[in-house]
Amino acid sequence: MATIKDVAKEAGVSVATVSRVLNKSSKASQAATASVNKAMKQLGYRPNAAAQALVNQTTNTIGIVVCDVSEPFYGTMVKAIDKIAHQNNKHVLIGNGYHTAEQEKKAIELLINSRCEALIVHSKALSDKELVAYAKEVKGLVIINRHIPELASRCISLDNFRGAYLATELLIKNGHHKIACIASAHEIDDAKDRVDGYLAALKAHNIELPNGYIEYAEPTSEGGEDAMTNLLTKSTDMSAVVSYNDYMAAGALSIAKENSLHTPNKLSVIGFDDGIIAKYVSPRLTTVRYPIELMAQKAAELALMLSQGQEYSEQAFCYSPTLVQRESVMRHQAA
Amino acid sequence: MATIKDVAKEAGVSVATVSRVLNKSSKASQAATASVNKAMKQLGYRPNAAAQALVNQTTNTIGIVVCDVSEPFYGTMVKAIDKIAHQNNKHVLIGNGYHTAEQEKKAIELLINSRCEALIVHSKALSDKELVAYAKEVKGLVIINRHIPELASRCISLDNFRGAYLATELLIKNGHHKIACIASAHEIDDAKDRVDGYLAALKAHNIELPNGYIEYAEPTSEGGEDAMTNLLTKSTDMSAVVSYNDYMAAGALSIAKENSLHTPNKLSVIGFDDGIIAKYVSPRLTTVRYPIELMAQKAAELALMLSQGQEYSEQAFCYSPTLVQRESVMRHQAA
Repeated sequence: MATIKDVAKEAGVSVATVSRVLNKSSKASQAATASVNKAMKQLGYRPNAAAQALVNQTTNTIGIVVCDVSEPFYGTMVKAIDKIAHQNNKHVLIGNGYHTAEQEKKAIELLINSRCEALIVHSKALSDKELVAYAKEVKGLVIINRHIPELASRCISLDNFRGAYLATELLIKNGHHKIACIASAHEIDDAKDRVDGYLAALKAHNIELPNGYIEYAEPTSEGGEDAMTNLLTKSTDMSAVVSYNDYMAAGALSIAKENSLHTPNKLSVIGFDDGIIAKYVSPRLTTVRYPIELMAQKAAELALMLSQGQEYSEQAFCYSPTLVQRESVMRHQAA
Repeated sequence: MATIKDVAKEAGVSVATVSRVLNKSSKASQAATASVNKAMKQLGYRPNAAAQALVNQTTNTIGIVVCDVSEPFYGTMVKAIDKIAHQNNKHVLIGNGYHTAEQEKKAIELLINSRCEALIVHSKALSDKELVAYAKEVKGLVIINRHIPELASRCISLDNFRGAYLATELLIKNGHHKIACIASAHEIDDAKDRVDGYLAALKAHNIELPNGYIEYAEPTSEGGEDAMTNLLTKSTDMSAVVSYNDYMAAGALSIAKENSLHTPNKLSVIGFDDGIIAKYVSPRLTTVRYPIELMAQKAAELALMLSQGQEYSEQAFCYSPTLVQRESVMRHQAA
């Protein structure tokens, strides 16, 4: 690969002049710029991004920490951020936290050391305190999918409580009273907030149900299968199920089908996320939409603004979920 | 953020000494190393990755070009590469090519300029010639999901012909003769190879069908719906369908269902990829497994070997697809 010295020699100028042209310094004459550009083209010279980052004190990079980029939810998030990055001539660097504090820490530190000018962090395992410390260190850091009071103006979050409330209320409005809840066994805020939303909707409609109507499992389709199996085994008298996410709902649907419990005629099921599988399961899943694209775009814009020291409002960015009605919920049929 | 000068001052040594410690030079004394490390910790100093890259002439980065990281197929590919990167203390930088030559070029050049030591490229839009030129420039460049004769030993590809052949043969072995083909309208090798595999399997079993049994559309579930609708509109007398991918198969399933054509009783359907939706559609999809994880891991290992100038065999890495039998194919029922 041609070096900056080769370019200087070919163009008949000094290395310092080539450097000035590369960094678009106003001190480079038009003639020098022309001959340097010509020489670079002839030699196939590529400017070294690391060297430019040192000179310009910026890497033009947005760092993203996700749990696992192979999950479609995070893929969608990364794509939305990449879109904003693209519009601003930035590129993105991605780290996977894989749901553990140690890996999340490693991913964040790697991106900080790479001098990402903006950083969008999806962290579930690190403590508020640890994230606040990173936010103090990196001014362009934004938290997505989590609300931390001390960082309210730098958090883009979803009202999970409201999402579960809406889902439960939709079932109640359809005449269901015996509503089971398939919850996530992960000890994260999202899991707790969604169960709280379910309970609040029941309470608002004066519905009392035993604790056994809530079943906790892994937030996967296998977890949904386990939870649904347990509900049926316990002879739970239910006509509808609120599910933590679409995967668990899909698992519940398949167990219901195996047990000749027709959805939606005998059992209504509602999911959460409106992820890729919601349209493919049968019947197509009625669910709660998680506006991750909108949230990720907002996070990217906010992170870039903060990194450039621009003003931002002090308001928290808490997004509202909405209902997507497809085919897995219907009016309760009296037995 | 603390600078290297701050660290030198705090440690009572020169900037050059701090630099030697950072770069693990053997010239740094034990005492100096201890005091520099202590000072770095006290000041919260973070080594600048760009500066280290210049000194060490390596960035410890594997670049990946995919079509679109939000598609689960590419998410899985990136995760598999990230796993190998992790084992080798490397990190990954991702670029999206979004199916266009211009974007693919931009993504590759950005990663080359960032001095990625290894580069794994999934390109469908650039010409063989352009990719060969990049491969000459970057010794750690590997092509995934494409076979280029001049780069045979640096290409990790799948035998698409064989995959479609196996799929079609499975249907024939189940007594089907009237087998339609839902093909991709994209002008890429994968699309052509899969149609060729379908035709070869028919020929090997002395089955002749009119051209109208092949329907081309976008390789999405909507495309699958369009293709299936067209096949039905043309009164195609078929008992089975070979589909370009799982998404198109899912679209075909939903149109068949709307038209009371029960799968698999009246229509067998086979997909390709064994992607995330294959397990969620109803009936669960019989399909051809695309071993993208295995291929991506191999690509990462090969790219790292090549980047370090290690020997490699001259053999091409062409992987074989396998069948995954679920519920969407059954024995042909005589009418």
